[in-house]
Parts: sequence; structure tokens; C-alpha cells
Amino acid sequence: METCIYVAKVVRYYEKLVDSYFLFYNLKMKLSQNLKIHRRINGKIQIELKDSLDSVEKLSTYYTPGVAEVSQLLANHPEEVKQYTWTNNLVAVISDGSAVLGLGNIGPIGALPVMEGKAMLFKQLAKIDAIPIVLNDHSAEGIIRTIKSIANSFGAINLEDIAAPICFEVEEKLKNTLSIPVMHDDQHGTAIVVLAGLINAMKVVHKNINDCKIVVVGVGAAGTAIIKLIHEHGPKSQIIAVDSKGIISKDRNDLNNYKKELLKISNPKDIKGGLKEAILRSDVFIGVSKPKLLTTSDIKIMAEHPIIFALANPEPEIYPEEALRAGAAIVATGRSDFPNQINNALAFPGIFRGALDNKVTSITTKHKLLAAQAIADLIQKPTPDKIVPGIFSPKLVKNIAKLIK
Amino acid sequence: METCIYVAKVVRYYEKLVDSYFLFYNLKMKLSQNLKIHRRINGKIQIELKDSLDSVEKLSTYYTPGVAEVSQLLANHPEEVKQYTWTNNLVAVISDGSAVLGLGNIGPIGALPVMEGKAMLFKQLAKIDAIPIVLNDHSAEGIIRTIKSIANSFGAINLEDIAAPICFEVEEKLKNTLSIPVMHDDQHGTAIVVLAGLINAMKVVHKNINDCKIVVVGVGAAGTAIIKLIHEHGPKSQIIAVDSKGIISKDRNDLNNYKKELLKISNPKDIKGGLKEAILRSDVFIGVSKPKLLTTSDIKIMAEHPIIFALANPEPEIYPEEALRAGAAIVATGRSDFPNQINNALAFPGIFRGALDNKVTSITTKHKLLAAQAIADLIQKPTPDKIVPGIFSPKLVKNIAKLIK
Repeated sequence: METCIYVAKVVRYYEKLVDSYFLFYNLKMKLSQNLKIHRRINGKIQIELKDSLDSVEKLSTYYTPGVAEVSQLLANHPEEVKQYTWTNNLVAVISDGSAVLGLGNIGPIGALPVMEGKAMLFKQLAKIDAIPIVLNDHSAEGIIRTIKSIANSFGAINLEDIAAPICFEVEEKLKNTLSIPVMHDDQHGTAIVVLAGLINAMKVVHKNINDCKIVVVGVGAAGTAIIKLIHEHGPKSQIIAVDSKGIISKDRNDLNNYKKELLKISNPKDIKGGLKEAILRSDVFIGVSKPKLLTTSDIKIMAEHPIIFALANPEPEIYPEEALRAGAAIVATGRSDFPNQINNALAFPGIFRGALDNKVTSITTKHKLLAAQAIADLIQKPTPDKIVPGIFSPKLVKNIAKLIK
Repeated sequence: METCIYVAKVVRYYEKLVDSYFLFYNLKMKLSQNLKIHRRINGKIQIELKDSLDSVEKLSTYYTPGVAEVSQLLANHPEEVKQYTWTNNLVAVISDGSAVLGLGNIGPIGALPVMEGKAMLFKQLAKIDAIPIVLNDHSAEGIIRTIKSIANSFGAINLEDIAAPICFEVEEKLKNTLSIPVMHDDQHGTAIVVLAGLINAMKVVHKNINDCKIVVVGVGAAGTAIIKLIHEHGPKSQIIAVDSKGIISKDRNDLNNYKKELLKISNPKDIKGGLKEAILRSDVFIGVSKPKLLTTSDIKIMAEHPIIFALANPEPEIYPEEALRAGAAIVATGRSDFPNQINNALAFPGIFRGALDNKVTSITTKHKLLAAQAIADLIQKPTPDKIVPGIFSPKLVKNIAKLIK
């Protein structure tokens, strides 16, 4: 009998070893495949001419001497620039590489393939021309100065993967200075889609957001914007912000101005403590923090029918299966291989399509609320497995775009 | 008889009036046509995807999570950026709008349609992706700072329509700092094509450039580069530089450093005076100055078989017909409606094609000399009407590109 148990243990040990080897091998193969595809395609976007330039006559229209008249006109009437240049359909996807995906501060060159991928999304989903611009600036002042200098080249600016708190100052100052729309997608794209999901999750569990206690863990770019937008949508909801030091509360003396600002719209009962104190009897957990932060015992102390948005990427705060087993009513993640993917690409294509088409110069809170509602409305009967539409939903971009005016 | 003369005069007066009316009318119509075409096409270039992004699988390869591996690789090995991003085929066409075509300092927005036109030329002639970037910077320091910040986004930089003397400092400092090729086309593109034309013009008139007196009028971006490149090609030629104050000579106390620098390679006999003193017995006149600067009597005091490059745009220093009547052996202009068009587009597509393909990090004087010779060599038997090829010549780009290595 003992020998049997021993043999079984050994077998299990080897099974695990073989399993982990294959997992590693598959991961490695899959990863190499990504590199291979990127090498083979050797650039994911390219320039195309809207008319061929194959005659001296066309040359003298589109270039010298004909273009001189267009230039002279625009020098006198810069407000007409979109009539005569590609800026009417052009978004710059700009990053300093300081907060790239889950990789952190990998710098401008590391960020470039992501920005190029984002440019693909713009074109595929919203027929918008987008170009990746990565900056070798590392201060808010430097980033702002550079973007102000190049801004005339574009019709709108999508800030991307810029770390908090610099991202707040960069976006705010650019919005105040430039006459074209500027949106930091890590903040607002995420917040819009989270709110869309939350609107439908509320329907599934038959709760009113204004009665809910909502815990947001991670108070960087995304977390801050999520808190602000949820507050706009459900001003009576009790939002608790939690960063790596614990709950954002009045007694904290380590808060930067942006976190202090959040005290005006969060933590009305001034709860103190850590994650446990925050999530006790809460209705919603929204994590934009780090893998495996949330345990099943955490979920068990939440209110009835808890809603879990575990958005850390690629590994969520808790895996859906585990959360559901612990009693979660609805689980959303950032991943495409689970139901309810909270994906920025649900929001930004429609937002920018609308802003460009309707000549909007600033993307406002009202725009964001309307966009969230439009995304939510695409799901007629939300279920625990379907609180947000897919990014290829045919009406998605159009429905959002018409509201951004 | 007197009545007859009077009537003839009146008739001639009305003829002239009608002529000028029609000239004005045609010009106006043609100009409006340029505006109309630009409005209708509403942007001359656009972004195209090199692969469609129509499945969740492709999304997770080209964007998250797959792209993370590419980003991580490039963060560790930035030197591999061209393997994985569109920078391998991407040129930024950058201007501050301070010296646009013949229009002068019309600012970044006015410059944008020209830069977009240039991007068309890059794609049509050399299959290079090029994007227009206009800068709201107005100092050498500001332009340099901005370009250094965004440079990682591109594979090469074509500076365009930046006024002298700022353009010299900008180009020099960027060349010294950046690890991608930088070329100010108004300087070097022009100089290369002028030299190509001059090489063939010498064959037509059976002269050796090292025996020639060459007058260059206009000592801005183009003039300065022309003088330097001709000196490299024919170091014993006697080059006389003339600016709006007269000949660049040792007694001038109003010269900036760039013009002082030219004294080392020009005016070896220290001739003083104005245009007349410069062109007396000269073999070649190269004007990059202003309309109608040169008269027939000027040409008559030049050496035998004078060569005239009247490159002011759109109106040359002297019209070809007039110059030929006054005894010019060869006349070149910047215009497509006369023979011998000195067009930058003969040089820059091949230069950048070669620089990108052969991973050249700096475009050198040797490259420029080779390019000029390659352009000249495309004309097997130069004639007074054919000293340079057309920009659509099939071997043009390839023949230059293979030398830029």
C-alpha cells in the first residue's frame, strides 16, 4: 500500500514536470510565433496615395507649383486645414513608453510596436488614419512641449501608455492649449468601457449603482478615470479607492494632488485600512492593479451577488473560474479568452470617429458618459456572460460616433 | 497718317488689355482648379494596413497580448527596431514652414500641404512611406529639441523648407546626434541635381569644370550647398558667391559664420563688387535668388557658351528664350514647362531608398557626389535641351540607391 502511494506520488511529480514543460514549450512557441509574424510583415502599417502621382500634370497640382495656392490659402486661413490635408482623418498615437501594457517603463522604442498596433485598430475599426509617434521626453513639461510643437500635423491626439501622475498633467494642459481633441486612452477609454460593463452588470444583478459600494483597486491612470466617470454616472454610489498603501482616506499624508482630489468624490464615510476593509460588504470590485491580488475569501466578504472586474493584464487579480466558485455573480477581465472582455477598443474608435467627423475640439465628460451608455445599449439582454459587446460589433463605432458632437 | 498711328496705338492698348485679362482669367481658373482638386481629395495620403485585423487571433498577435513580446525584445535590443516596425521604410518630412516654396515664412499649417505632396513623391517614386510633420518651433534650438524627441518614430528624416541660416545648425546638430539619416533636401537635393546638370552641361560645351568660373547667386540653403558640392566635385573651379549685398569677399563685414565659411572654398581671387563684377567672363551662372535678376546684357559679358541655371521659382532669373537669344548655350530652370528641369525629386527618392535599404546612418558628401554622377549618367548623350533625366526615368531611383551604402 505504501509503495503504491509512493509510486503514485512519483507519477504525479513526473506528470507535473511534463505538464509544466509542455506549458513552457507551448508558450515559447506561441511567443516566437508573434515575433516571427512581426518580422515577416516588417511593419504593420504603410502609406497609400489617394491618387496616383504618375504624370507631370498631377505633380504640378499636388506638388509645385499648384500646391503653393493651397499653402497660401492655409497660411491666411489655418482654420481650413482639414479641407485640404489628411488631418481631417488623422490621429497621432503618442507615447513616451513609460507605462506600456504590463511591461512598465520600457521607453519609446519598446513602445513603438504597440502604438503601431493601435494604429491598425484605428484603421480597421473606424477607418481612421493613425500614426505612431514615440517621444524621448521623460517629463510632463517635455512631453507637453513636444506635442504642442507637432500638433498642427494631426487632426486629433490619442495619448497612450503614459504613466501616472504625469499623464494627468500632460492631458490637462494639452486639452487647455490645443484646438484639436486630445484623449489619454488608458484613462478614458478604460473608464468608458468599465462603466458600460457596470451599467449592464447592474441590470443582471438588479441593483442600482447609486446604492452600491464600489471598490477600485489601483489608482493610476485607469483607476483615477474609472472613479471619476463612475461618480459622474452614479454620484450617490460609495466609491472606495485603494492604492498599494491602502484605502485613500483623509488621514493619509502620502497622497499626491491627484489622489487628494479623489477624496472629494470617493470614500464619503472616510473608511480607513487596507483591501479587506475596503471590500467588506462591497457590491463591486474593480481591479486595475496586479495579478492574484484578490482571493476567494475576499469575495466571500463582499455583498450579495458581487461583481468582479479583474482587469490586470495579462494575468487578472483573480481568474474568472475561481471568482465564480467563490460566489461572484459576474466576472469581467481584460482578456479575450474569457467572457466580458473590458477592451478599450470598444470605445476609442467611435470616440475619435465622432470627434473627427463632427469637428469636436474637446472630448468632454458628457461624451464619455454617452459613449458608455451606447456601448451598454448594444447588449439588449445582459447576462452574467455578456455585459459588453465584441469589438467587431457592426453598429458599435457608428452608435458612439454620432453622440460625439 | 497720324490718325492711323493713333488708331494702331489704341488697338494695341486694347489688345494688351484683353491679353492681360485672359492671362489673369486663365491663371485664376487654373489656381481654383488646384484648390478644388485638393478639397475634393481631402487629404493626399492615407494609412493602409499590411494585414487585415479582422479576427481576435490577429488582434492578439499584432496588439495585446502578442505585441508585448515584440516590445520587450525592442526594449532590450533597440537596434532591432527596423525588423519589427514600419520604421524600416519610413521617412518623416519635417518643416517649420519658415521657407516654403516661393512663399517664404508661412508657418507650419501653410507648409502642411507641401509636406503631404512630398510624402506622395516619396511613395510614388521610391515606394517609401513618408509622413508630414510640421513644427510650431521657431528657433534652431526648439526645432532640434522636438525632432530629437520624436526621432525614434522614424527610419530617416527629410528636413524641408527650413530657412537659412537656421537650417544649417539644425541639420548639423541632428546629424551629429541621431543614429538615423537626416538630410535637408532644399540644400542637398538641390545641390545634387544642379551638379548632375552641370556635369552634363560641361560635356555639351566641351569645358572642364576645374577651368570654369561659376557664379552662384543666392546664398541661402540651396546656394550654400551648391557651392560646397561643386567645390567637392571640381575643387579647382573658381566659384563666386553673390548674395543680396554683392560678392562674398574678404572685405565684407556683414557675413554670418556660414557665409564666412564659404570664403575658404569660393572667390580665390577675392573679387569684390556686385553681380556685374561676378559674372564678367564667367562660364556658369547659377541663380537661386529671385525673378528677373539676370538680363540679356549680363549674359553678353559672360565667357563663351555660357551656361545659365535660372532656378528661382516659379519665375526664373531669366526666361530660357530670352537667355538663349542673348547667347546662352544651355538654360536650365526649376520649371517643368521648359527643358532641363532641375528638380530635387531626381535625387531624394534614390538617396533615401538607398539609405533605408542599406542601413546607412548618415548621408555623406561622397553619397551626394555619387548620386549626382548617377543622375548625370542616365543621359547618354547630353544636348543643350537634355542635361538631366525626367523624374519618372525607370532606372533613376535604383541607380542612385545602390550607391548609397
